Amino acid sequence: MKTLQVDVAIVGFGTAGMNAYRSAKSLGKKVVSIESSHYGTTCARVGCMPSKLLISAAEALHQVRSAKQFGITVNGYQLDLPAVMNRIRAERDRFVNFVLKEVDSFPPEDKIWGDARFIDDNTIQVDENITIKTNAFVIATGSKSRVPSSFAGLGDKILSSDSIFELETLPEKVAVFGQGFIGLEIGQALHRLGVEMTLFASGSDSFAGISDPLIMEEARRILGSELRIELFPDVKAISLSNDKVSIKFLSSEKEDLEENFDNVFLATGRQPNIKDLGLENTSVEVDQRGYVIFDSLTLRCGESPIFVAGDVQGSLAMLHEAADEGTIAGLNAANYPNIQNIKRRTPLSIVFTDPNIAFVGDDFRRLESGSFVIGVTNFANQGRSRIMLKNKGLLHVYVHLYSRRFLGAQMIGPRVEHLAHSLSWLVQMGLTVDEILTMPFYHPVIEEGIRSAFVDAKKKLG
Amino acid sequence: MKTLQVDVAIVGFGTAGMNAYRSAKSLGKKVVSIESSHYGTTCARVGCMPSKLLISAAEALHQVRSAKQFGITVNGYQLDLPAVMNRIRAERDRFVNFVLKEVDSFPPEDKIWGDARFIDDNTIQVDENITIKTNAFVIATGSKSRVPSSFAGLGDKILSSDSIFELETLPEKVAVFGQGFIGLEIGQALHRLGVEMTLFASGSDSFAGISDPLIMEEARRILGSELRIELFPDVKAISLSNDKVSIKFLSSEKEDLEENFDNVFLATGRQPNIKDLGLENTSVEVDQRGYVIFDSLTLRCGESPIFVAGDVQGSLAMLHEAADEGTIAGLNAANYPNIQNIKRRTPLSIVFTDPNIAFVGDDFRRLESGSFVIGVTNFANQGRSRIMLKNKGLLHVYVHLYSRRFLGAQMIGPRVEHLAHSLSWLVQMGLTVDEILTMPFYHPVIEEGIRSAFVDAKKKLG
Repeated sequence: MKTLQVDVAIVGFGTAGMNAYRSAKSLGKKVVSIESSHYGTTCARVGCMPSKLLISAAEALHQVRSAKQFGITVNGYQLDLPAVMNRIRAERDRFVNFVLKEVDSFPPEDKIWGDARFIDDNTIQVDENITIKTNAFVIATGSKSRVPSSFAGLGDKILSSDSIFELETLPEKVAVFGQGFIGLEIGQALHRLGVEMTLFASGSDSFAGISDPLIMEEARRILGSELRIELFPDVKAISLSNDKVSIKFLSSEKEDLEENFDNVFLATGRQPNIKDLGLENTSVEVDQRGYVIFDSLTLRCGESPIFVAGDVQGSLAMLHEAADEGTIAGLNAANYPNIQNIKRRTPLSIVFTDPNIAFVGDDFRRLESGSFVIGVTNFANQGRSRIMLKNKGLLHVYVHLYSRRFLGAQMIGPRVEHLAHSLSWLVQMGLTVDEILTMPFYHPVIEEGIRSAFVDAKKKLG
Repeated sequence: MKTLQVDVAIVGFGTAGMNAYRSAKSLGKKVVSIESSHYGTTCARVGCMPSKLLISAAEALHQVRSAKQFGITVNGYQLDLPAVMNRIRAERDRFVNFVLKEVDSFPPEDKIWGDARFIDDNTIQVDENITIKTNAFVIATGSKSRVPSSFAGLGDKILSSDSIFELETLPEKVAVFGQGFIGLEIGQALHRLGVEMTLFASGSDSFAGISDPLIMEEARRILGSELRIELFPDVKAISLSNDKVSIKFLSSEKEDLEENFDNVFLATGRQPNIKDLGLENTSVEVDQRGYVIFDSLTLRCGESPIFVAGDVQGSLAMLHEAADEGTIAGLNAANYPNIQNIKRRTPLSIVFTDPNIAFVGDDFRRLESGSFVIGVTNFANQGRSRIMLKNKGLLHVYVHLYSRRFLGAQMIGPRVEHLAHSLSWLVQMGLTVDEILTMPFYHPVIEEGIRSAFVDAKKKLG
């Protein structure tokens, strides 16, 4: 058994881990990374990148089908699903290779391969060969799809974002479980690519992460008019039967149904990769849901020299947040015990459905009732959206009653992935409704919907 | 002859005129408007709205043709051009009707119909019936397509944005003259809708209004790879021959060619509608190009009580600028001789080609050489753009060397109509490159191209 003494050890080497590595190294510290599964990021391998590739094919087919309304009659088409899946993997591999190349460029002595297990707050063992003693740790082991017990026994009939992009073609009939951003993005893409898709939105009453009830209602209405969404079904039994997944449920319409599916796609949540880390040997505490307890400002676990960054935290899995967390966790580990708070960017979440869903700034749920007004734009009559035949959606902007400051927004609408960026930047700059209305708005653009919402808010402020 | 005494008279009642009317009225003044051609706006009748409708059909067909690269084989299609043109007119009429309804809501005694002719700086005559005496005027008569003398004799073979949207179907072969935003937008849309289109980019060496030479080169390269663009051709003769327009020219390739076209589409510039206004009876002066001379801050003509707003000024025809000008001209006319300066928004121009072209903030030409760095993003390798197969384009952001402030940007790229809005707002807020890099950028989005450009600029600043 070899013993290594370093300043910082990074456990897990995805987006957060790599950023932690870079920031700790930038301070001239001796840093090692430990990885046992994949170098590179969840985002590029099984997350944002391949899902956006699937969505781009679904969007292309949707546009072919929608051409009629612009005066174009298509005489039929063939969808080459193996080609779609091949493009996804080829492009995915290209993105992953960029990351792998970067990992390759790090000195070999900084990279240790193997299963890590904590011995105590300052010691970790890798496989049976190496013991690493360190001043501080960063845990950035990420997360994986969680399989609820009711799905046990379905074996490889269960698809998740970890496996779906490996398919040669798509199944004919799929039950998607989960109405978070993964369930909705993948569910809509499957539907548009000709899969007979049913989305089981059971469990909580949330939808796409939206907390503003009117925006949630509009999102359910718009997506529900295209997709079969079983809202609050009572799922009574899930079993394997003749190589199909049989689901018995009381539908939203209160019908007792039993249907067979080729696969289920599980997007009911993820769980942190911490099971075999031996955290019980450290002073790190784990909450009832199975997540590490840490300080959200310093990313430090209790009074330990152990920091957590990225999806392992159990927050919304977002690359840009994981990157920021990695950077600050790396700095804090390197400077330990002198630590600083993370400077968070304005919250920004985007769901890449069509129409897009997004929320920025303060969460609607946390706004004090009566302290703000809501400026509204309905995209049904928004000029440019109508020209593009994308005139569906609703935008709410929240403006503080006394300071007139723009606090946050939630929305579903055409191309709001772009509008959400602009809006999050306006929040971050702390602008008032009056300052926002001095900005240029071209014509005819979807951004004029932003102006309408703030004009409405200004009227309501009086 | 009836004589009317009012506080303010507005000559021309489009976007600028209507805004001038509203702002003068809001101060409790007696205001009349005079119009002899069309109520409502150039934008809705013959400008932004119908052109965006033409572009949306062209874009839909382009997407049908591009589906193959996403794994979708289309077995052929029919384009119903009369349906395309009908949708343009139906939607156009709907937008125009919103404006007409608003005009209808103004008191009838405030609206005078007829040809206006100035008698002196405070008097105007409408047809033979009415003489209006007023404290101040706003001229907002707009502009119309200019027909250069070399096109004389082509009669109705000449199309312009004033006439093209009235066609029942599109011609087979069209020569577009003019490489400004109208020529490029309409030229590309015609091409994508199956018209055999040649764009004659003669005259000046500008292109789409771009002033940054590398962005211009990239725009010419990208659009030139799709469209037949004759760059700097020597046009020797244009004549009518057997019901076709015959054009003799020395091509960019230095070949002597003679080609026949069904029509020419003229987008070589516009001229102000001032010819019959009798300005020679006032103290208003006109420059050599035929434009009224006015103070760009107060919109006042010389020492006269006459203000100009909107396209008649001869600046870039943009609805949002015309609206602002109308508002301030109306206020200044109402308060005359107490006048104020217009508060301009950050400059923002968008050309709705595919890829879009845009420029924001300070014009590249006016930046002092050596006082700034250029941050660059090439969209060829931008992640999300590549996923969408829209990875073409170039973004330049200009950052001041000492203050590190973001000054302006020029670009061609995917969906940059949205990025340009965000960028113009960053300029207006006077942010530095360092402040901009603290903003949230989601992943994977085209906006990450903005971040890359600022990261590049920051490196160059050192």
